[in-house]
Amino acid sequence: MTTPRYTPLAAALPATVPFVGPETQERARGRLFQARLGANESVFGPSPKTIAAMRAAVPQTWKYGDAENFDLKTAIAKRLEVAADNVIVGNGIDGLLGSLVRMCVGQGDPVVTSSGAYPTFNYHVNGFGGDLVTVPFRDDFEDTTALVTKARDVNAKLVYLANPDNPMGTCHRGGVVQSMIDALPPGCLLVLDEAYVEFAPQGTSPKIDVDDRRVIRFRTFSKAYGMAGARVGYGIGHHDLIRNFNKVRDHFGMSKVSQVGALTALADQDYLAEVIQKVDEARRRISAIAIANDLMPIPSSTNFVAIDCGRDGDFARAVLAELVKRDVFVRMPFVAPQDRCIRVSAGTGPELDLFEAALPPALEAAG
Amino acid sequence: MTTPRYTPLAAALPATVPFVGPETQERARGRLFQARLGANESVFGPSPKTIAAMRAAVPQTWKYGDAENFDLKTAIAKRLEVAADNVIVGNGIDGLLGSLVRMCVGQGDPVVTSSGAYPTFNYHVNGFGGDLVTVPFRDDFEDTTALVTKARDVNAKLVYLANPDNPMGTCHRGGVVQSMIDALPPGCLLVLDEAYVEFAPQGTSPKIDVDDRRVIRFRTFSKAYGMAGARVGYGIGHHDLIRNFNKVRDHFGMSKVSQVGALTALADQDYLAEVIQKVDEARRRISAIAIANDLMPIPSSTNFVAIDCGRDGDFARAVLAELVKRDVFVRMPFVAPQDRCIRVSAGTGPELDLFEAALPPALEAAG
Repeated sequence: MTTPRYTPLAAALPATVPFVGPETQERARGRLFQARLGANESVFGPSPKTIAAMRAAVPQTWKYGDAENFDLKTAIAKRLEVAADNVIVGNGIDGLLGSLVRMCVGQGDPVVTSSGAYPTFNYHVNGFGGDLVTVPFRDDFEDTTALVTKARDVNAKLVYLANPDNPMGTCHRGGVVQSMIDALPPGCLLVLDEAYVEFAPQGTSPKIDVDDRRVIRFRTFSKAYGMAGARVGYGIGHHDLIRNFNKVRDHFGMSKVSQVGALTALADQDYLAEVIQKVDEARRRISAIAIANDLMPIPSSTNFVAIDCGRDGDFARAVLAELVKRDVFVRMPFVAPQDRCIRVSAGTGPELDLFEAALPPALEAAG
Repeated sequence: MTTPRYTPLAAALPATVPFVGPETQERARGRLFQARLGANESVFGPSPKTIAAMRAAVPQTWKYGDAENFDLKTAIAKRLEVAADNVIVGNGIDGLLGSLVRMCVGQGDPVVTSSGAYPTFNYHVNGFGGDLVTVPFRDDFEDTTALVTKARDVNAKLVYLANPDNPMGTCHRGGVVQSMIDALPPGCLLVLDEAYVEFAPQGTSPKIDVDDRRVIRFRTFSKAYGMAGARVGYGIGHHDLIRNFNKVRDHFGMSKVSQVGALTALADQDYLAEVIQKVDEARRRISAIAIANDLMPIPSSTNFVAIDCGRDGDFARAVLAELVKRDVFVRMPFVAPQDRCIRVSAGTGPELDLFEAALPPALEAAG
């Protein structure tokens, strides 16, 4: 008998990672990237007030963070005009997705998502033995109608929608998402990932109705608030579902410095507005660079731009490899037909200068 | 049909928390604690070098932390003279225990621990449907012989031992633990929690043998390194087991500031030695206070002292309540007969002054 004895599920799982991190790539390359434009982080960083508050909190690191995330949860609730018991704070959307999937998905339970949508959601579903069923994107948008139809066909417990979408950057109007919610089959929960919603036009998010048991939405401090490394996300939903996270979550799992940082960041909406403006400018510049190279930028409601390289996935992969060779870290969609694109995160001027300089030779080398 | 549809296991779980945090108590009381001596945090804090490094890292919070925790993992491995692939870094021992239990424990799988040992381990075992079987402490020590016997009787997949122990503060010599490992039944993994090992005498930890598949040990930056709020722990074990954490862990779940802090803290062994010295002084003082009040301190190898209040659990609970009323946060064991004690964490002078002043009236009021 071997030791330890794994569960059959754990024994069968691959040891995998949803994304290969830039540091891992740097170690493999033996060279640092000069432009970090691949992980949809916010190069504009946390607000100066947030940085100051986090620095001030560092000596308090000897204390466990508040297990209830009370102050942060309360502040989020107030801003969203919901009750605190409609909000769950956790270790980024990634961590919260893991808890949600754990609560709902057992061996063989059907879950629906789009082919090429967020790999970390898929990682969790596979990790709990769920049966992942996909529908294709339609014209670079997640296909809300097909998602609902498939959810009905397979009696899905969960259906995942990122709005705005990653990796394509497109988004639906809130009314379309609301129609999707209203069309969900009985017993199916919409997992609405709004990680990028701050960058999207007004009206992208359907009205929050915490009495509606059919949807939970997730938001994060990782993107617009510039705090990916702090690991703070939150979910908004019916209080019964929110309370049930307490059955499975790591209660003392939140960094104290991160708690303080997120609370400060949330209060600094002026800075958020600045970042959104800067991201918009960066998106325009990335689009202009694409067009100058005879490539087609896909209109983005996020902090990145998917650029259609005009040929197949092999070509886009070659372009990406050539950019990486030139020390520009970018990523690309994993699945066809989206993988005809590369995905470039909003950067500062110098980073986009590097991208601008690297793209023409990369395209030429990719042939 | 209700939405969402939980797994039968999740539906049956209680919404619980292994510990009620001090902030939760403060909110319920409407008043702050004046001495925080209940959570075995290190009031001596992270080292000045660690604080400086974490502060310097705060602006880098826009980046996701390295998903491999490469630098930290490598530094830990070097210090322990093992390979990097024998080390897994995660969100505190709590988070790592959750991942381990998830890998090994399915519905009805037997797991053995001591009655009144670490509640968060039990929380994870229950959370994955395991069948938790306990043996009593013997003379305030975890009973390694009884643990092994019970593990054999029930065919346990995991057996948990904290050495030194929490909540009693006692410890076994490394040779005793090694004998326990050698006596484990086939297929049983020893989960050796060494959260407090830095405070214990030399020889408390059995020699690390990463070729031995029968044991995984966990250590942390939360206690001696004064970084409970940073959420960094690590596991040491056979590379196959360590690699399998990649099947279930939240790869990008570590705070970047925490990664930097832990790496710096590990290098600052002079400060660690200072803290260990201060904790030893605090333990002596807590013991002296206990004795001055005709109570019996239990010799401690940790950063806290369990004080035998000399009567039953109801009396100790009354003493604890009276201390809390006097703004001194302490905790106590949950289970008889250990619950005749209160548990007081090592504090600085002023905090222990408060405890010293509060204890006599608390004892009198508890009557």
